[in-house]
Amino acid sequence: MKCMLHRSLLLLYLAVITSSEILFLAVDLPLKGKRSPPNAIWPHPQEIQISNDLLYIRPGHIMISSNMEPCDIIAKAIQRYQPVFFPPKLTMHQPPADASNILRSLTLNVLDNPQCEQYTQYNSNETCNSVWGLLRGLETFSQLIYINEQNYVVINDSVAIIDSPRFQHRGVLLDSSRRFLPVPLIKKNLDVMAYNKLNVFHWHIVDNQSFPFESRTFPNLSRQGAFSSDHVYTPEDVTSIIEHARLLGIRVIPEIDTPGHTYSWGKSMPELITVCWANGKPYQAIYGQHGEMEILNPIEPRVHSTMDALLREVKSIFPSNYIHLGMDEVYDLCWRSNPNVSRWMTDNKINSTRDLHSYYANRILDTMRNISAITIVWQDVWDEKVELPPGTIVQIWKAGQGYNVILSSPWYINYINYGHYRTNTTIVNLEFFKYCEVEPLRDFSGSDDAKIRILGGEACLWGEFVDGTNLLARLWPKTAAVAERLWSAASVNNSEDAQFRLDVHRCRLLRRGIPAQPILNGYCGNYELSMPNSMINDPAFNYDISPATDLTTTTIKSNPATSYLFDATSSMITSIFASLLLLINITLVTISFKY
Amino acid sequence: MKCMLHRSLLLLYLAVITSSEILFLAVDLPLKGKRSPPNAIWPHPQEIQISNDLLYIRPGHIMISSNMEPCDIIAKAIQRYQPVFFPPKLTMHQPPADASNILRSLTLNVLDNPQCEQYTQYNSNETCNSVWGLLRGLETFSQLIYINEQNYVVINDSVAIIDSPRFQHRGVLLDSSRRFLPVPLIKKNLDVMAYNKLNVFHWHIVDNQSFPFESRTFPNLSRQGAFSSDHVYTPEDVTSIIEHARLLGIRVIPEIDTPGHTYSWGKSMPELITVCWANGKPYQAIYGQHGEMEILNPIEPRVHSTMDALLREVKSIFPSNYIHLGMDEVYDLCWRSNPNVSRWMTDNKINSTRDLHSYYANRILDTMRNISAITIVWQDVWDEKVELPPGTIVQIWKAGQGYNVILSSPWYINYINYGHYRTNTTIVNLEFFKYCEVEPLRDFSGSDDAKIRILGGEACLWGEFVDGTNLLARLWPKTAAVAERLWSAASVNNSEDAQFRLDVHRCRLLRRGIPAQPILNGYCGNYELSMPNSMINDPAFNYDISPATDLTTTTIKSNPATSYLFDATSSMITSIFASLLLLINITLVTISFKY
Repeated sequence: MKCMLHRSLLLLYLAVITSSEILFLAVDLPLKGKRSPPNAIWPHPQEIQISNDLLYIRPGHIMISSNMEPCDIIAKAIQRYQPVFFPPKLTMHQPPADASNILRSLTLNVLDNPQCEQYTQYNSNETCNSVWGLLRGLETFSQLIYINEQNYVVINDSVAIIDSPRFQHRGVLLDSSRRFLPVPLIKKNLDVMAYNKLNVFHWHIVDNQSFPFESRTFPNLSRQGAFSSDHVYTPEDVTSIIEHARLLGIRVIPEIDTPGHTYSWGKSMPELITVCWANGKPYQAIYGQHGEMEILNPIEPRVHSTMDALLREVKSIFPSNYIHLGMDEVYDLCWRSNPNVSRWMTDNKINSTRDLHSYYANRILDTMRNISAITIVWQDVWDEKVELPPGTIVQIWKAGQGYNVILSSPWYINYINYGHYRTNTTIVNLEFFKYCEVEPLRDFSGSDDAKIRILGGEACLWGEFVDGTNLLARLWPKTAAVAERLWSAASVNNSEDAQFRLDVHRCRLLRRGIPAQPILNGYCGNYELSMPNSMINDPAFNYDISPATDLTTTTIKSNPATSYLFDATSSMITSIFASLLLLINITLVTISFKY
Repeated sequence: MKCMLHRSLLLLYLAVITSSEILFLAVDLPLKGKRSPPNAIWPHPQEIQISNDLLYIRPGHIMISSNMEPCDIIAKAIQRYQPVFFPPKLTMHQPPADASNILRSLTLNVLDNPQCEQYTQYNSNETCNSVWGLLRGLETFSQLIYINEQNYVVINDSVAIIDSPRFQHRGVLLDSSRRFLPVPLIKKNLDVMAYNKLNVFHWHIVDNQSFPFESRTFPNLSRQGAFSSDHVYTPEDVTSIIEHARLLGIRVIPEIDTPGHTYSWGKSMPELITVCWANGKPYQAIYGQHGEMEILNPIEPRVHSTMDALLREVKSIFPSNYIHLGMDEVYDLCWRSNPNVSRWMTDNKINSTRDLHSYYANRILDTMRNISAITIVWQDVWDEKVELPPGTIVQIWKAGQGYNVILSSPWYINYINYGHYRTNTTIVNLEFFKYCEVEPLRDFSGSDDAKIRILGGEACLWGEFVDGTNLLARLWPKTAAVAERLWSAASVNNSEDAQFRLDVHRCRLLRRGIPAQPILNGYCGNYELSMPNSMINDPAFNYDISPATDLTTTTIKSNPATSYLFDATSSMITSIFASLLLLINITLVTISFKY
């Protein structure tokens, strides 16, 4: 926490200075560096060699085949990338009539033991010869294709990439309690996560403000705890989000945050919530200490039976095996203020609210063991020395003591800053700089042993001031900086250079219909909202306007005559191998071209 | 500047403290106050009395008549408000069959001497019995109508409003040079300005980064100075923006910023720009002092002839009579560094760069006098004691010395902050608090004489980090706080109360298809992006998706049978008077209902 605060103070101080200096935004110090090429890959691969010569691609005609084709994950990915390869509104010319250097096909093969895995898991995904690595390779391939200034679709004629993620857990937290996030918006954000090779959606689904998760076991929780009957995730909604994520190689980890943050539960089940007292009266809030009633009551038996049933239901719905239990910000002064809780503690020889918290945690961890689920908690519970089982994952900013760790504090995307950060020689977008400069193993670990316990990190967007109007622009491309930090090598850490590559990647996101906000002066074609080629509201990308394009309901076209992507009539078969080779604990993706 | 900086430091300090306290966003201090009614008017009128009883309105059927109907401004306004009164995607029931309390018509009359004015001017608009006051009254009326929980369209049966703007100049600055802003986006933003009774669009149209204004006299300025041929405002574009604004009662004031901020001019006319020297070499940038070449060369005769011709063209295009000349951030060290300029200064007995700036300013002000245009400049030129003609308007943070003043420094919307501001008893959205708490006459004037020189203010959104992806969400509803400060009485200054009214107004903007971002936890129906009733991409509001609805190209339907709004077959005529009475220097808008 201290480290975090220092960091914020420093950066905000810089922001103040910067702001006062650039009141009218004069660019008196030119940007250093040069624009990146349009096929700069984000996040940066571990190794890349790229030629200068180009191949043409006939717009809408590249034959893709795979030894995984019966696998829905690959088949749907191939279809999904159609409008990505060939954006529907852009001008694309056929190659010159005499051109022979045309790339006509792409082969996506898992070389060893091809298996159609159904759901990505923590240790299996991307670290072996699997469909997940193939998905990441396909994304890389899609970033290599571009439309040149003469409006030809082109790709370099020789590209060798060896790639693998540095960290296994690369996530985004969204908060659907403070403001409701519509299902199409969540799915669209999953798409952008996949464009950035992120693989965990941490869904902070309920909190004090609302309970939008519709439980079959306890339907009143959302019936009375959601903002309205429109602001609810039905079981079908939840399933379709999980399915959408599954096809993108993204695990969905639900967070059922207890025992604090449960005000909305009390609307239907007040018996579960501790009534806070003050001055001899119940239902009293004291500023800075506790609200009126927002913490589960650990001495209430119905709390434990409810939690047991609810977690069983959650486990049965979410295939990820992980459940985030929250356990942050438990205002123990409320427990202490309640006469019944105090008496019970005396009777049961529980001397401190920390021990009471441990008591609660142990009951809930029993359930987690019984349902074979892996626990993730926020740092607070670990700071309080609550005893946790060894496999537990702590989401926080420092490691140690044998727990696995997910970093989040440096990447609270909801915190916004204006302006540039000045290096000695140039200026860098301040927010980008802040996220890009984090080095997990340098900044957030105590001992060598602790370092290997860092599983990865998450960008967190708390929902107070975000909803459909600004969520995508607020997250992107800032979160792409986090994605690169978690995917690429530690040596990829030059933010002056990276901001130009990110600018190119931001243009790529615009072309894919994502309203990612600008990070530099300038432009990137006429793709943005309200411009002639804008894809932002294009049905090919937007689930809102055209629900029929929803991945989870799309059927795969097999007739080449009507297919957008396949060109089975081509006589000249050119192949690209996207090969996955198994190495110990890393993924090796090789894309090589021939024509 | 000092005042401005103090203010920023204070607020950012608060932001840091707040951030560290609410790391996980616990709402331990409940919001004080209660939700405002759905018809809360923004900006708050000077006087309002409202009854409790309601009238029904038949969806799509209210007869609007006006003694100004041949006037295109009123006729098009009536048509424009159709989808505002009756949003196309919302469920609206017909009144119960036995209902007699139905409001069937609205009469919009200018009582004294009705005249169809063509263009709003500084002193004529809204301060007399005119079409402009009628437009503001129609906006107020539109905010009084709402759809209740039973899905009836209703309005209170008696409303008496006396209203007038506190300041005459209520503006928004957009910067189309650092990033290009597409024409439909600018028009949409003009719509939102009108929803907030703002009346000046300050168009910072060119700057160092690009020159998107296509001049007929100097077409190469944009041909070579714009980002690309797509990133240009053609004469037709400019005319259509002016026309769109005209119909909304908004003046467009162009800013042609010189002698600094002219790097983009040099791409086509390098002869106009001062070459900066350092260490005996030309074309040298020195960090913190000057760039390579970005300031007009005042000793170059072609500068003066070009400026004369360009300003004449600008004056002929923009009917507002005002031209903003910029004159900020003139890095005089570049002038000093240039041997030719130095020699010329010696030869002409000009001792300081301040006098050189005066020399330049006087040449350009000659032109302004010759073309009868009124000058606005940024504070810098006034700080430098450059002599300006008495009618000049200075855009800055303090008044005095006989110049008229426009306030902007407290309202730089591009500066972003996260979090809440804590009062003693509750919490208020920090950014909203910052803009809302400004009191022009208290915070920004020295003497009593100076106070009456404050013409108004402008919210400025500099374009470094905004474009079509985030401009509307970034501006709204924050800029609505500025709009209220400039329109409503000084006594309307309770930000704790106002944030709930603004929350309602924000929901209203969502219903009108504007992606205004949230300022509080919670929800406001299912209007937002990606939700079933979202109007954000509805053709009725979105110029991008359906250019045919563009106000400037719409023809007025006169056949009642096909009209959405008119119900001429109704036998029972109910009338509402929106009357404008002329008082000295204030507008009095009275809306009274009968049925």
